[in-house]
Amino acid sequence: MLPFDSLISANQLTPEIISQITAVTDKMADDIDRYGRINLLEDKVVALLFFEPSSRTMLSFQSAAQRLKAGMVFAQGAASTSIEKGESLEDTIRMVEAYSDIIVMRHPWHGSAETAARTSTVPFINAGDGGNEHPTQSLIDAYTIMRHKGRLDDLNVVFGFDSLQSRSIHSLTTLLSQYPNNRFTFTGPEELMPTSKMLESMNDMGVECSVADSVDLNDGYDIFYVNRLQQERFADPVLFEKNRKKYRLTRKQVEGSDCLILDPLPRIDEIDTDVDDLPNALYFKQASYGVPVRMALLSLLLSKHNTP
Amino acid sequence: MLPFDSLISANQLTPEIISQITAVTDKMADDIDRYGRINLLEDKVVALLFFEPSSRTMLSFQSAAQRLKAGMVFAQGAASTSIEKGESLEDTIRMVEAYSDIIVMRHPWHGSAETAARTSTVPFINAGDGGNEHPTQSLIDAYTIMRHKGRLDDLNVVFGFDSLQSRSIHSLTTLLSQYPNNRFTFTGPEELMPTSKMLESMNDMGVECSVADSVDLNDGYDIFYVNRLQQERFADPVLFEKNRKKYRLTRKQVEGSDCLILDPLPRIDEIDTDVDDLPNALYFKQASYGVPVRMALLSLLLSKHNTP
Amino acid sequence: MLPFDSLISANQLTPEIISQITAVTDKMADDIDRYGRINLLEDKVVALLFFEPSSRTMLSFQSAAQRLKAGMVFAQGAASTSIEKGESLEDTIRMVEAYSDIIVMRHPWHGSAETAARTSTVPFINAGDGGNEHPTQSLIDAYTIMRHKGRLDDLNVVFGFDSLQSRSIHSLTTLLSQYPNNRFTFTGPEELMPTSKMLESMNDMGVECSVADSVDLNDGYDIFYVNRLQQERFADPVLFEKNRKKYRLTRKQVEGSDCLILDPLPRIDEIDTDVDDLPNALYFKQASYGVPVRMALLSLLLSKHNTP
Repeated sequence: MLPFDSLISANQLTPEIISQITAVTDKMADDIDRYGRINLLEDKVVALLFFEPSSRTMLSFQSAAQRLKAGMVFAQGAASTSIEKGESLEDTIRMVEAYSDIIVMRHPWHGSAETAARTSTVPFINAGDGGNEHPTQSLIDAYTIMRHKGRLDDLNVVFGFDSLQSRSIHSLTTLLSQYPNNRFTFTGPEELMPTSKMLESMNDMGVECSVADSVDLNDGYDIFYVNRLQQERFADPVLFEKNRKKYRLTRKQVEGSDCLILDPLPRIDEIDTDVDDLPNALYFKQASYGVPVRMALLSLLLSKHNTP
Repeated sequence: MLPFDSLISANQLTPEIISQITAVTDKMADDIDRYGRINLLEDKVVALLFFEPSSRTMLSFQSAAQRLKAGMVFAQGAASTSIEKGESLEDTIRMVEAYSDIIVMRHPWHGSAETAARTSTVPFINAGDGGNEHPTQSLIDAYTIMRHKGRLDDLNVVFGFDSLQSRSIHSLTTLLSQYPNNRFTFTGPEELMPTSKMLESMNDMGVECSVADSVDLNDGYDIFYVNRLQQERFADPVLFEKNRKKYRLTRKQVEGSDCLILDPLPRIDEIDTDVDDLPNALYFKQASYGVPVRMALLSLLLSKHNTP
Repeated sequence: MLPFDSLISANQLTPEIISQITAVTDKMADDIDRYGRINLLEDKVVALLFFEPSSRTMLSFQSAAQRLKAGMVFAQGAASTSIEKGESLEDTIRMVEAYSDIIVMRHPWHGSAETAARTSTVPFINAGDGGNEHPTQSLIDAYTIMRHKGRLDDLNVVFGFDSLQSRSIHSLTTLLSQYPNNRFTFTGPEELMPTSKMLESMNDMGVECSVADSVDLNDGYDIFYVNRLQQERFADPVLFEKNRKKYRLTRKQVEGSDCLILDPLPRIDEIDTDVDDLPNALYFKQASYGVPVRMALLSLLLSKHNTP
C-alpha cells in the first residue's frame, strides 16, 4: 500500500516508496514473461486522458492496463486542453472519475496535475503536466538503475547534455540525492550547465558535484544519463549545430566501458545508432520497463498487487 | 426485450420502455458497485463511431462497454463524416456491421441516425445526430428523476435557460408529457422562451405550462433542468453578456430548497461552482448514470441482460 | 506454422501458405458465428500503428484482435509518420515491440514495412505501406474466391477498371498467376490498361491474357474484380467524367449472370447501388472476411491457432 492516492510529483518518491514499487515491478516483469497478461485489474477501468500527444507514455500505459486486463476508457486530443470546449478541468475530472476507477492524465499545463488530483475522488497519476513533472519517468529511471546496478546509492553518475532545463535530469538528480554517497558530473554546452544555485542545493543534500566539458567513460562512471539538446534552447542555430555535433555519444566512447547508458528517449541524434548493440546501451531496455513500472503503480494505487 | 432493434429518437421512449430500461439500469449500477465489471457482453463486439467529437458521450459509452467486458472497435474523426472519403454512410454501416455486433454512432448530420439504422442489420444506437436527436441523454435524464424522485408523473419542473432551441429540453418535455399531472415552468431570456405553438402542443398533451422571468426554487418545484445559453444564439454580444449574468443559478437560490438541480453538462457558467456541494445539486450524479443507463441499453438491444 | 515471422508483401503468399491461412480462416469464421469471441490470444497484446488513416483496415484489425480477446495498444496519427517528432522508424519499432507481442502497421511511406519488419523482434504485419504493398487485402481476395468458387485455379477473371495502377489488382494477378489454367481479361479506359510488358510477364507465368473495351458477364466469366477509377489519374476532368460514366457496373449487366462481383472497397460509383442485393454481389461479404482472415494471420504468426 502506498501512503498516497495520487502520484503528482517525483518529490513523492522516497527511498521507501521506490523500494516498494521496485519490488512489485520485478514481479510484474516476471509475470509478463510468464503469462503475457494477468487478471489483477480485470474488475477495474483505467481512464487515459492524453490532452497532449505523448505516444511513448500513452502506449506504455495502454500496454500496462492491457497486461493487467483492466478495462480502458481513452480520450486523446492535442487541440483541446479540456474534454468539452469551455468546461473547467475540475468538471472534466468529476465526469471522468464517474466513468473509471483510476485516472492517468497528460496535460500541457504546468500544475494541471495538482488541480486534477485535488478534485478527483479516484486515484490519479500524472503522466506529464507541461514542463513541470513526469514522475513515472523518474520511477522508470530509478527502476532501471536498481535492476542493473542493484543499488541507488554509491553511484558515480554523469548527466548530459542539458542539465539546466531537462525535466528528467532534474527529477533524477533530486531522487538520487536522497541516497548516500552519490556523485554527479554534469557535461554539455556551458549554457546548459546547472546553475551554481542548483549545484549548491545538491551539495547540501550530500552529493558531490562537478562539471566537465567532456568525460571519459572509463573513469569509473557507473551511469551516463543522456538527454538530447533541444534546438529551441538556442537562439543561434549555428551554435546549436556546433553543440549538437560535439555533444553526442559515439561507439568509440561507449565501447569497452562498464558505464551504463540511459536515455529517456526519443533519441534524435544524441547517441549514434551504432552504439545500440553494445551491452551497456540500456536505453531501449529502460523504455521497456515503462510497462511493468506502470503496472506496479496502477496496481498499488488500486490496492491490488501481486505479492512480490 | 425491447420492441425495437435501434434507438434513434427520444420518441421511442414510452413509459413502458423507460420503466424496463430503468429497472435494468438499477441492476447495472448495483453490479458496478459490487463487481466493477461483469461478463454479460464478453462474447460481443461494440462499434463506437464518433464522426463528431463528444467526449462525454464517447467516454461513457466506452466505460459501459468495458464494464460489460465487451470487445470494442473504435473510430473517431471530426474532419470526416464518413469512414472513407467519398463512401456513402450506407456503405460505411454495411462494413462496420460486419465487424461488430452493435453500432453506436455520433454524427454531425441531422437524420444520419435514421439512415444508418435503416441500413444496419445489427442493433444501432444514435449517440447524437446533429441538432436532431440524442435519445440516450433523455434516458439518463429520466433515470435520474426516477431514481431521486421515485416517479415521472406529478412533477413540477422548471426548464431554463434556452427552452426554444435546446435539444435536451425538447426531448425531456416530450418524454415527461406522456405522464399525468406534470407541470412545466419555462424561464430564461424572452427570446429563448418556447413559442406559443410549443406551449399549446404541451397543453394538448395535458401538461400545465407557464413562463416566468425568474423563479423562486422554494415555490414547490421538484426539478430545475438547466441548459446553458449559447452565445451563437445571440446576434448582439452585449445582450448575450447581460443574459448570461442574469440567467445563472447561484448558491443563494439553490441552498435550502428541495428542488433537484439537473444539467446535461458541460457546465460553462450557468451554475455557480459553489452550488456543487449542495445535496440537491445532482448534475454530476446525473452524468455518472450515463454508464449504467448505456450498459442497460447495450444489453437489452443485444437481448442479454441481468434480470432486474 | 508459417515459414516467416512477418508478412510484408503479397509475394510471400504461395499456394501452400494461402491454403494454410484459408483453412484457419474457415475455422475462425465458424468460431465467430458460434462463440462471438474466443480466448485464443487472451495472453497477447497486439499493437496497431496507423500512421496513415485507413479506417476499413483499422476497424477490421481491431475487430480481429477483439474477437480473439487479445489486448490492444493503439496509436493513430495522420499528421506524423513517426511516434515522436524526429524519432526514426527503427527507434519507434524498438519501443513498440517492448509494449506488445505483435505489430500491425499502416504507414504512408513505400518500403516502411520492410524497414519495420527488419527491425522488429516480434512478428510484424504490413497493413499497407504507401502505394507499395497491402498483403492482407490480397489474402482477403484469395479467401473470398476460394470460399465461393472452391478453387484458385482454372478461373476466368475480369479485372477493371484501372489495371495499370491498382495495387489490389497487381497483387491479385500475381497471386493467381501461381495457379494453373487461369485466364485474365482486362477492361477499362485505354489509358489504364496493363502495359504490354505486364501482359507478357503474366503470359510467361502461364496465364492467358486479353484486353476488352467491354465485357458481357454471361460469357463464362467466374469473377469480375472491380477497382474504381481515381480522378487523380486523369489530367483532363472531362475525360475522367466520360470514363466514370462508361466504366461502372449496372444491375442490368450483373443480373442473371453467375459471375461473382468483387471490389476491395470503398465503392465510390464504380458499381451501382441497385447491384448490392443480387446474389453474386459479393463485395460486402468480401469486406466481412477481413476479420476472420486477420484473426487467422494474427494467430498463425503468434503460433497459436485453433486446429482447422
